[in-house]
Amino acid sequence: MAPLEEQMAFVAEVGKLKSVLRQTVLAEVGRPENSAEHSWHLAVMAMALADHAPPGTDLARVIGMVLVHDIVEVDAGDLFLYADASAHERQDIAERAAADRIFAILPAGQGAVMRELWDEFTERRTAEAKFARALDRLQPMLENFSLGGGTWQRHGVTAGQVLSKVELIEDGSATLGSYARDLVNQAVAMGILAADSAEGSGEEDQLDG
Amino acid sequence: MAPLEEQMAFVAEVGKLKSVLRQTVLAEVGRPENSAEHSWHLAVMAMALADHAPPGTDLARVIGMVLVHDIVEVDAGDLFLYADASAHERQDIAERAAADRIFAILPAGQGAVMRELWDEFTERRTAEAKFARALDRLQPMLENFSLGGGTWQRHGVTAGQVLSKVELIEDGSATLGSYARDLVNQAVAMGILAADSAEGSGEEDQLDG
Repeated sequence: MAPLEEQMAFVAEVGKLKSVLRQTVLAEVGRPENSAEHSWHLAVMAMALADHAPPGTDLARVIGMVLVHDIVEVDAGDLFLYADASAHERQDIAERAAADRIFAILPAGQGAVMRELWDEFTERRTAEAKFARALDRLQPMLENFSLGGGTWQRHGVTAGQVLSKVELIEDGSATLGSYARDLVNQAVAMGILAADSAEGSGEEDQLDG
Repeated sequence: MAPLEEQMAFVAEVGKLKSVLRQTVLAEVGRPENSAEHSWHLAVMAMALADHAPPGTDLARVIGMVLVHDIVEVDAGDLFLYADASAHERQDIAERAAADRIFAILPAGQGAVMRELWDEFTERRTAEAKFARALDRLQPMLENFSLGGGTWQRHGVTAGQVLSKVELIEDGSATLGSYARDLVNQAVAMGILAADSAEGSGEEDQLDG
């Protein structure tokens, strides 16, 4: 195939992400969010919240990462953040296989560049990846909060579980982490997020951070 | 309001774009596309098709433009590309008012920077804007083609009308323009896009380019 045909095949293939549904329900429309519009929202968040990334963060790279981070779900589907550890392990394997297949649709050099973005997001070592991952964690919290509970209530998620995810937001951005922590406390005070009982407080350790 | 609160208000406001429906029907899922997932697809197209932009094109700027280009539709809604000229004039006014309101939700300096991206896309003078606009025209053609006609058939659009839009794609990218022209010819040959009758061939001049 000519490079343009390979690129167009990739464009068509990733378009399937519009049909991958997430657990998050959109307050505005009362339907589940799909992974394509979620990715768009993260990219606009990266632009709007750029000054909360550490100084020197390469914003274009953050945006590139959030745009491609969920493409693997075309094959692997979306896994709920609060699924158990073994489900996350199976998901990791499926996503890696999906990345091998989907990025390889592009001309070789270009596929490698985009795969690097996906790997960087997944490995969460650079400031860019940490900020991108922080946005990915923050966005569903904002949706749940504006929906008055959302997946927190539907799946019986507790404040302790949400706070274990907030640590990852803090790792990407101090101010966004502190905003998220306030949001959790406010949600508990409003009665839309359950406080933890004493005996259940260690449960979040089993969950993927 | 503190800057972070303004930024978060903007993030929530633009999220409403997920509920703005376009005319394009998605082949994969059989439902109308919304403007948020459309914008995401354009951003990924910008990455995948970057080497078809003129040399020296600032890709990060193209991506910024396609991410924000439809935000005004939160207020103004989406107008079908082949609507008549007076509908396009009314839409332009509504979109400008929407841009005034929505970008002003952000802290002032930041709102101005994002508004500049939107203005640049709208005015279509720079290489970046021309490439971004080319992607915006190409994407629904790809969806219509893969759906076997889509909005072309539903709205009785003819090859001449589509080709008048192809000129704008050629203006942003020679190779993508030629790809789009081939697609139109192929669609006519396959019988999924109507050829023009001799007397109707001037009609596209009334349409917004």
